[in-house]
Amino acid sequence: MTKTIYILNGPNLNLLGKRQPEIYGYDTLEDVERNCAAVAKDFGLDIRLLQTNWEGQLIDWIHEAREKAAGIVINPAAFTHTSVAVLDALNTFEGPVIEVHISQVHKREAFRHHSYVSLRADAVMAGFGIEGYALATRRMGSLLAG
Amino acid sequence: MTKTIYILNGPNLNLLGKRQPEIYGYDTLEDVERNCAAVAKDFGLDIRLLQTNWEGQLIDWIHEAREKAAGIVINPAAFTHTSVAVLDALNTFEGPVIEVHISQVHKREAFRHHSYVSLRADAVMAGFGIEGYALATRRMGSLLAG
Amino acid sequence: MTKTIYILNGPNLNLLGKRQPEIYGYDTLEDVERNCAAVAKDFGLDIRLLQTNWEGQLIDWIHEAREKAAGIVINPAAFTHTSVAVLDALNTFEGPVIEVHISQVHKREAFRHHSYVSLRADAVMAGFGIEGYALATRRMGSLLAG
Amino acid sequence: MTKTIYILNGPNLNLLGKRQPEIYGYDTLEDVERNCAAVAKDFGLDIRLLQTNWEGQLIDWIHEAREKAAGIVINPAAFTHTSVAVLDALNTFEGPVIEVHISQVHKREAFRHHSYVSLRADAVMAGFGIEGYALATRRMGSLLAG
Amino acid sequence: MTKTIYILNGPNLNLLGKRQPEIYGYDTLEDVERNCAAVAKDFGLDIRLLQTNWEGQLIDWIHEAREKAAGIVINPAAFTHTSVAVLDALNTFEGPVIEVHISQVHKREAFRHHSYVSLRADAVMAGFGIEGYALATRRMGSLLAG
Amino acid sequence: MTKTIYILNGPNLNLLGKRQPEIYGYDTLEDVERNCAAVAKDFGLDIRLLQTNWEGQLIDWIHEAREKAAGIVINPAAFTHTSVAVLDALNTFEGPVIEVHISQVHKREAFRHHSYVSLRADAVMAGFGIEGYALATRRMGSLLAG
Amino acid sequence: MTKTIYILNGPNLNLLGKRQPEIYGYDTLEDVERNCAAVAKDFGLDIRLLQTNWEGQLIDWIHEAREKAAGIVINPAAFTHTSVAVLDALNTFEGPVIEVHISQVHKREAFRHHSYVSLRADAVMAGFGIEGYALATRRMGSLLAG
Amino acid sequence: MTKTIYILNGPNLNLLGKRQPEIYGYDTLEDVERNCAAVAKDFGLDIRLLQTNWEGQLIDWIHEAREKAAGIVINPAAFTHTSVAVLDALNTFEGPVIEVHISQVHKREAFRHHSYVSLRADAVMAGFGIEGYALATRRMGSLLAG
Amino acid sequence: MTKTIYILNGPNLNLLGKRQPEIYGYDTLEDVERNCAAVAKDFGLDIRLLQTNWEGQLIDWIHEAREKAAGIVINPAAFTHTSVAVLDALNTFEGPVIEVHISQVHKREAFRHHSYVSLRADAVMAGFGIEGYALATRRMGSLLAG
Amino acid sequence: MTKTIYILNGPNLNLLGKRQPEIYGYDTLEDVERNCAAVAKDFGLDIRLLQTNWEGQLIDWIHEAREKAAGIVINPAAFTHTSVAVLDALNTFEGPVIEVHISQVHKREAFRHHSYVSLRADAVMAGFGIEGYALATRRMGSLLAG
Amino acid sequence: MTKTIYILNGPNLNLLGKRQPEIYGYDTLEDVERNCAAVAKDFGLDIRLLQTNWEGQLIDWIHEAREKAAGIVINPAAFTHTSVAVLDALNTFEGPVIEVHISQVHKREAFRHHSYVSLRADAVMAGFGIEGYALATRRMGSLLAG
Amino acid sequence: MTKTIYILNGPNLNLLGKRQPEIYGYDTLEDVERNCAAVAKDFGLDIRLLQTNWEGQLIDWIHEAREKAAGIVINPAAFTHTSVAVLDALNTFEGPVIEVHISQVHKREAFRHHSYVSLRADAVMAGFGIEGYALATRRMGSLLAG
Repeated sequence: MTKTIYILNGPNLNLLGKRQPEIYGYDTLEDVERNCAAVAKDFGLDIRLLQTNWEGQLIDWIHEAREKAAGIVINPAAFTHTSVAVLDALNTFEGPVIEVHISQVHKREAFRHHSYVSLRADAVMAGFGIEGYALATRRMGSLLAG
Repeated sequence: MTKTIYILNGPNLNLLGKRQPEIYGYDTLEDVERNCAAVAKDFGLDIRLLQTNWEGQLIDWIHEAREKAAGIVINPAAFTHTSVAVLDALNTFEGPVIEVHISQVHKREAFRHHSYVSLRADAVMAGFGIEGYALATRRMGSLLAG
Repeated sequence: MTKTIYILNGPNLNLLGKRQPEIYGYDTLEDVERNCAAVAKDFGLDIRLLQTNWEGQLIDWIHEAREKAAGIVINPAAFTHTSVAVLDALNTFEGPVIEVHISQVHKREAFRHHSYVSLRADAVMAGFGIEGYALATRRMGSLLAG
Repeated sequence: MTKTIYILNGPNLNLLGKRQPEIYGYDTLEDVERNCAAVAKDFGLDIRLLQTNWEGQLIDWIHEAREKAAGIVINPAAFTHTSVAVLDALNTFEGPVIEVHISQVHKREAFRHHSYVSLRADAVMAGFGIEGYALATRRMGSLLAG
Repeated sequence: MTKTIYILNGPNLNLLGKRQPEIYGYDTLEDVERNCAAVAKDFGLDIRLLQTNWEGQLIDWIHEAREKAAGIVINPAAFTHTSVAVLDALNTFEGPVIEVHISQVHKREAFRHHSYVSLRADAVMAGFGIEGYALATRRMGSLLAG
Repeated sequence: MTKTIYILNGPNLNLLGKRQPEIYGYDTLEDVERNCAAVAKDFGLDIRLLQTNWEGQLIDWIHEAREKAAGIVINPAAFTHTSVAVLDALNTFEGPVIEVHISQVHKREAFRHHSYVSLRADAVMAGFGIEGYALATRRMGSLLAG
Repeated sequence: MTKTIYILNGPNLNLLGKRQPEIYGYDTLEDVERNCAAVAKDFGLDIRLLQTNWEGQLIDWIHEAREKAAGIVINPAAFTHTSVAVLDALNTFEGPVIEVHISQVHKREAFRHHSYVSLRADAVMAGFGIEGYALATRRMGSLLAG
Repeated sequence: MTKTIYILNGPNLNLLGKRQPEIYGYDTLEDVERNCAAVAKDFGLDIRLLQTNWEGQLIDWIHEAREKAAGIVINPAAFTHTSVAVLDALNTFEGPVIEVHISQVHKREAFRHHSYVSLRADAVMAGFGIEGYALATRRMGSLLAG
Repeated sequence: MTKTIYILNGPNLNLLGKRQPEIYGYDTLEDVERNCAAVAKDFGLDIRLLQTNWEGQLIDWIHEAREKAAGIVINPAAFTHTSVAVLDALNTFEGPVIEVHISQVHKREAFRHHSYVSLRADAVMAGFGIEGYALATRRMGSLLAG
Repeated sequence: MTKTIYILNGPNLNLLGKRQPEIYGYDTLEDVERNCAAVAKDFGLDIRLLQTNWEGQLIDWIHEAREKAAGIVINPAAFTHTSVAVLDALNTFEGPVIEVHISQVHKREAFRHHSYVSLRADAVMAGFGIEGYALATRRMGSLLAG
Repeated sequence: MTKTIYILNGPNLNLLGKRQPEIYGYDTLEDVERNCAAVAKDFGLDIRLLQTNWEGQLIDWIHEAREKAAGIVINPAAFTHTSVAVLDALNTFEGPVIEVHISQVHKREAFRHHSYVSLRADAVMAGFGIEGYALATRRMGSLLAG
Repeated sequence: MTKTIYILNGPNLNLLGKRQPEIYGYDTLEDVERNCAAVAKDFGLDIRLLQTNWEGQLIDWIHEAREKAAGIVINPAAFTHTSVAVLDALNTFEGPVIEVHISQVHKREAFRHHSYVSLRADAVMAGFGIEGYALATRRMGSLLAG
């Protein structure tokens, strides 16, 4: 059976491409989905991209991923810095987890420098724009194929 | 078309007038709504007052305000101190934002002295009781009329 | 009328007994419910055990408890450390509140050492495994009978 | 006898309207005085607006207010962040105190985020431009009339 | 041979029931002893309750417990926050250790929020009044019987 | 020639006996002056008691004391915690300096626990009510007679 | 019956007059006792001066003082900075407590600037040499006579 | 002319593949070079991979890159956390800079969580093993081609 | 018209040459004035040297300088570390500002290491003795001539 | 007369060789005594090795050493990190003091990194196992012979 | 023999005049050398200006200066904030040391506000552009001539 | 083959015996070498003593030690406090590492209290003068012989 990568997105990312393009650029989550699917296909993998502004929803999807996903690529957005609950949910997941940030968070406000999710993530990247998702998917491909 | 001010309220404010009156007084959100509507009317403005205990709902409403509101008056209640997600949502809104607290938060516990929302708000007020909403609406009137 | 104790559980506790047994053991929330009900019965009390991954839901249940519960036993899980909103909700509840943690949180990461809920809870316990719930129910029995 | 509101202003506010208009705007203290007097009149109140660059003078006026004023609206400017002496003076005053800042201080340097005066003030506002004085006077009207 | 639980008490607890009843209640250590003995008996266990104001004595008793006790219930009182020596003594003990505080220490002064003993204790409880000792004994019963 | 002790008082002490008697009592600076003069007389000393709300005035008096005083008893009030300038002025004085606080400042807000003046003072006392001035004068008597 | 003041001294003060005279001077505890007895006699009071290097002993004496003393003058020496147990013991004492330090501790190492005992003491003094004990006894005389 | 990417490596990376394979794996810098060259070739780019244990050498190479490189991929290793000089050198470079760490530094000691280089880097990645270099080269390809 | 440099001096500098010569040397403000005037003359500039112990006076002079001075050389003395009001006054001045300290403040107490004035000053110097004023005047000459 | 070195040991060291051998090894204090005596003999010195779990006893022995010892080798164990009283006792001793820790404390919990005793000790060593005592004795030999 | 001043420059200063002119201006180290030589000549002094990106080289030159230089003017650049080794080297030098920064470092990132070199330097200056070197040389002239 | 101990020395130690003898004494590195060789010989070991002011050189020697040394005695001097690179190099070495400081660093400036090297060193000593090297060599002898 084809393995699936969950690509989970946190709050305000539904507006990707529509807000603050000087920080986040003009591409949308649909572009992200298309790019990642193409990379995943090269590795014989499926993806499932989801977005929510609700922390509870994000946790439920991570729980779902315990059953259905081989790996998780996650852009927790603002929850990165505040949600122990998301961290704890990821701690229950056994496959690889890659944390992606579109902007280079270490150049922004100090409160964006700390990530609860990084305490669990196997790899972290920031500042690659939406290409980061594709690179993370590529890494996931190597790991799941390996 | 009449411009609308969104008056958004965070968690536990549904109990306004029913809990801890020594801190929050005896007036309810309905009283707030009536007072603000009256002030707004003087400026030829509409209001839409909403309350939720769910952070995700609050973010969705802020996104909705991007399309439908000329300004936001927000009492983020407990989310003031903990929600980067609400801050990020407000960062996508282009009109004026006024942050209102019923009690004088700087006299309460230390963790109530920091506000993520203040990093975006154009103006902040605390300790005016529910009259604060009306005064914020009045300021919004000046700004939107100006 | 029989008094009821609300036994509220925060995020990821739906997985109790299914994840990280080296930390949380093999018992499930159903076991917790059975044990607590038995203890409560000895004191002539009912229980209502609930779990959610959504902060907003937890707040709504605490509000509901204002009408229907004589006491609250709460394991806020990750919200312990991050949710002022849950603290504020508990501040509106007038009966006794007991905070329970299955693992001994003070031996884990530093961010798990601080609890917003402890600012309101009448009693706190950590590291008793799921037996902690039954002991908390027993204490609640003493308090409500007293 | 007509009650009087003291409207006290700290250092550098004599230059209001003449310096850094991108922060403070083009209106002067005379404009503030005119606006506040108009609002006060609606509530049957007098105002007395004063400004000084000297901390000792400000303290003397607060002592004077103990005899002559029913309420104090104060923009302590730089003393906000550094003067325990002004705080102690206000602690001897028994009527309502409202703290006003023209700019939204929470968006400026970190040392402007702490206010000694807020430990005494019944209400605090920041970022309303000079309209803040008028809104504070309006609130004072409600309080003194109430 | 019957297993024994050592129930150790730190400084000022000899005054239990005689001082600050608004914090500590009216029961005495003799009441504690009677209650714990009753619970222990149900599990076929003995108890030995001791109290001292001298840190050195407490350490000596913990060393004695290495030979004679199957488990330790300890209310270190003020030593909780200051004694690395008591922590080190407990680190030499191999059975279960439960830390008990009569009052809810997390609601008191900040220096009472940190516990050296919690770095070793298997479980911690606070705010259960003297009933806490009995509940801890019950837990000890489960553990030693298990 | 008779030696003189300067007894200097900082901001808001002109209101001594008239404000917050639960903290500062009902005696006035005149009472302080009478008591100190009596004690000083026993040692063959004069006193000169002064009070000001103006930091600049206090510094000028300390400079004057360099010429005219054998010792300084100072209650810097709020300047205790904020004035490096007063500290620097005292650093230019060569005789003994005793710092007096009427209330027990270490039981009040945290910012009152730090004293710049203590970095220079030969002795410090707090919480003796206005009797503190007389005791400080007595000590000054011993030192200047010695 | 004549009231008694307990004058308690902490660790290393048995060496007073024998060690580090540049800090502590050449007088001994016997000199302190003689001076204080003389002052106390003027107020019709007895004193009982004790010294110990053992924290447990100091606590036991404070408990004894609950029965036998009208007031406590205490120089906790090193325990000032480290002993919550001594603080808790003093919290059980209902009469006045005065904390005395021979040297001006605020000019010494930073860890000597914090005092647990000051959280309970009604008055604190430092830097008066051994005369501080006599002045504290004098104050105690005023308080107990008052 | 073919553009060149400088791939710079800091201290101890000469031992890659030879030390601590549980952290860094078994591949060597030669493997890194081969992989990156292959990726770069797809984008029509050259690479120049260098390693040094000497901070001064690293700075000199960055200065050289100002003339000869279109982009810099840098694994500053230990200098990440300590070298303002490397940061300042990178600040003089005008092309894109990508910071790569083989291990997931945010899960290691706290002092490895801060990066001076991140204050300049356009993108940062950690925990991708040596594949991180190839992914960074791919990103550099997109940027330089774009 | 000849341009003027204001050379402003804060508290206790009236004692220059009369106090603590091991820190400040034996020269007086009159020497400073003579030296600076000589340097200024070489650049065709006038100087006006002023000193005050009163913060309000210093602010007033800075306001005056807005009209009359081309540049400000300021030794804020103790106000350096405590006065936001002086900083704010300097923020209203548009010409160059040079901050001078006679002693090398970074070798003295920690609280002397922070300067509010440095947040505005174009240049800062410390430890040049009174020659620092002359060097600052020379720099001012270059800037105003340039 | 033969000079004596006091070799003082703090709490829990009576269990040396009996507890946590992975940290402290299998040798006992008797082994330490034998080794140190042998080294001391080479230098013509005696030793006196003592151990206590009671802080007061340790202080008394240090006072005794003022009369009887030429140097002190001390392993303060847990008191290292918490006892100002032991530091103050050592401050009254005039000969050389060497602080010894069996384990390498800087690799253990953060609270073990600070030592009050190090503020007085002439030399400090950690992580040499029980051989550390012998090496310290050897150093003491050099110093006392020198 | 003519005395020599060493003018030492740390990392990245070889690019002076070639990078970030908005911070550092357009002049080069050659301009600095020419200006300083001219000033030095007026005092009958020689200069030797050196620059390196290698910390070890800088230390070696400081050691060389022990033999050959009468004073050191040093712009440690990035090493200012990170190099204890440079501080220690300067601590071995007995002549005057002046620390120069071209830009006003106190207005830049927080990590540039701390200087290890300032713990040794006799004087410090920042923000004078390259004229700072000439002014420092002038001061060195006064000191060495004095 | 004879095992070798590397005895590595960091910056400024080439001046040992020539600078600041009040801290470091009059012996030189040659004396150290002679003493250590003598001790090593007793254990049938060779030594190789090296010194450098260049961090890169020190790292290279540690890498060399991976091949050629059985143990490392290191006095990292200033690099102790600042060099993660030296720590990382030592982390690649598998034999015992002993850290030596000539002076008692815990009595010096606060920044000298932290050691990166201590995170790896098996043993640490400070304040033994140059005899510390010999004692460390003796310990190394025990370990390598053991």
